[in-house]
Amino acid sequence: MITEYVDRLHRAQAEAAHAGVDALLISPGPDLAYLTGYDAIALERLTCLVLPATGDARLVVPALEEPAALASPVGDLEIDIVGWQETDDPYALTVSLLPAAAATMAVDDRMWAVKALALAQAAPALNLEAAGRVLRELRMRKSAAEVNALRTAGAAIDRVHARMGEWLRPGRTERQVGRDIADAIIAEGHDSVDFVIVASGPNGASPHAELSDRVIEAGEPVVVDIGGSVGGYCSDSTRSYIAGNAAPPDFAAYYPVLCEAQRAQCEAVRPGITAEQVDAVGRQLITAAGFGEQFVHRTGHGIGMETHEEPYIVAGNSLELEPGMAFSIEPGIYLPGRHGARIEDIVVVTDDGAERLNTTSRELTLLGAG
Amino acid sequence: MITEYVDRLHRAQAEAAHAGVDALLISPGPDLAYLTGYDAIALERLTCLVLPATGDARLVVPALEEPAALASPVGDLEIDIVGWQETDDPYALTVSLLPAAAATMAVDDRMWAVKALALAQAAPALNLEAAGRVLRELRMRKSAAEVNALRTAGAAIDRVHARMGEWLRPGRTERQVGRDIADAIIAEGHDSVDFVIVASGPNGASPHAELSDRVIEAGEPVVVDIGGSVGGYCSDSTRSYIAGNAAPPDFAAYYPVLCEAQRAQCEAVRPGITAEQVDAVGRQLITAAGFGEQFVHRTGHGIGMETHEEPYIVAGNSLELEPGMAFSIEPGIYLPGRHGARIEDIVVVTDDGAERLNTTSRELTLLGAG
Repeated sequence: MITEYVDRLHRAQAEAAHAGVDALLISPGPDLAYLTGYDAIALERLTCLVLPATGDARLVVPALEEPAALASPVGDLEIDIVGWQETDDPYALTVSLLPAAAATMAVDDRMWAVKALALAQAAPALNLEAAGRVLRELRMRKSAAEVNALRTAGAAIDRVHARMGEWLRPGRTERQVGRDIADAIIAEGHDSVDFVIVASGPNGASPHAELSDRVIEAGEPVVVDIGGSVGGYCSDSTRSYIAGNAAPPDFAAYYPVLCEAQRAQCEAVRPGITAEQVDAVGRQLITAAGFGEQFVHRTGHGIGMETHEEPYIVAGNSLELEPGMAFSIEPGIYLPGRHGARIEDIVVVTDDGAERLNTTSRELTLLGAG
Repeated sequence: MITEYVDRLHRAQAEAAHAGVDALLISPGPDLAYLTGYDAIALERLTCLVLPATGDARLVVPALEEPAALASPVGDLEIDIVGWQETDDPYALTVSLLPAAAATMAVDDRMWAVKALALAQAAPALNLEAAGRVLRELRMRKSAAEVNALRTAGAAIDRVHARMGEWLRPGRTERQVGRDIADAIIAEGHDSVDFVIVASGPNGASPHAELSDRVIEAGEPVVVDIGGSVGGYCSDSTRSYIAGNAAPPDFAAYYPVLCEAQRAQCEAVRPGITAEQVDAVGRQLITAAGFGEQFVHRTGHGIGMETHEEPYIVAGNSLELEPGMAFSIEPGIYLPGRHGARIEDIVVVTDDGAERLNTTSRELTLLGAG
């Protein structure tokens, strides 16, 4: 991995130079983990990678985090560690490490605002930007190793969906089912549980429903959207089940439309098509069937070290897809007060099409009373 | 709780006015949960409370999060919910809700920089500040209900420390012990595990050591620093144990110094003393005993809805302590390559002194081979 981090650091520098950014300032979070392998927790004390467009990288860390930083891959990279003591001003220290002629600095998208503003105050003559514009050029194009990591995560979440009949049945609460799923997410190989949505009956009409104590009734549709992380890479897959032996007639009417839209979108993915075109392919089919108003969200989001990252598959995003881009295809149809459905797979753009990383059945799945 | 949220919102408005801030812009995180009870996850789509110094509060949310927002206490507060669709610009929408004459807006400390910068770009004529300066005036003075919540959390973590002999013994790895502690943190009443440090032998010389596969040897000191959350409030307590029947002589020499310093600091806490004076009380004792260079960090941090928040007990902080302020007292002595010790209790300032929320023994505790 060390050579991959070295390569990423060099490419980030080249992208920064290309974007007219003189230095990237990266605090703990996915950008720092991506560039250096240092998976530090974001805390109030400033930890900040100073990566100039040209020149050597340095890592500003609280003195008491120096052992942890050195134990990370940073210890094997050519990055000088600059420690600061409890009563030092780490912001003044950080900006003192910027290139003398720097005019623009860019902070990682997730840096806490209070830290970004303190850096701006310590270097009032510099323009302050968000680094996402630079780093997404790297992060949204996955390397072969990253695609493999996403494959591993996708296979792990598929194994959880394949076992859904063990837990999801009428008479249990969403929360009970959700706990079993969370245990299985770990048991099937994830390092962490990132989210568990079990949205039964009318709760399924809210795309981001929270787990509740609602008892699942026989014959209800249940949207199950789950994900975790393996080795720093995320899984995310949704299936919509029937907790019983027959689907409600109105659900049976729209579910095939959703299925067909999701299939068409996955098949449309190839290098050169734009993100918004992929969105439109499914939206047109769902709209033509009369459910356009019920598809209330974008088609999908990029995925990698974050569950949601670039590229977003949404109207207005004219980005042309390229090999190595990974994202979800997850159209949904939601009938307020009744139920909803969503089908989600992660896909990776290949040289001539796309590879689906989730392969469990998308057909209507009846999980009877057992 | 609704009346407490109403009160907090009004006090935040008054503090904003006092600080010359025309509007607070608060995204998901501890500030939003504190002000409204809405415990939303921070995602890339903008959710933002617009709280003007005078006038009505509004909550900007992605349309698909509206059900979740309404299901939170926000649904019972007089806060208009303003939804935005996937292709809308939520930043333009948010700044359109600012008071017409606004000159300064303040974003929550933890807002993602990319969002804060997008708000700044949408309102280039306004000054942008961090809201922490305003909100810490509320959050660092705990209400009776909040102190009770911290007491509950403190008692729960004390029950875990009281059981340490069940898990911590020579021959086990730090990670094995850490897993058992994590299970116990939940079993003893926390909703979540926030962190588990089990730093044995030389690892104890790093204040923020990560769990490792190092096998604990007989007679080694082990620093155990653990915490979780109950009902949104955090626990955090450290004890240093001996995994065996006798302490190393050099540890036995400095541990009583640490014990005495921590006791003196807890006893020094009262209204009117400054944060830095509390730090100095312990530092002087440890320095006088010859270990000043080995006490490498501040004395403590505030605690509440975040494990680390204001007030920080550190040299240079001249804040006068007031009743209701809650923070850790956690001096440490660290001998690189050998071992370390830290003793940490959460204390709350009372009308005439302080209450310790952690009460397990601070005496040298030998956990023999069993």
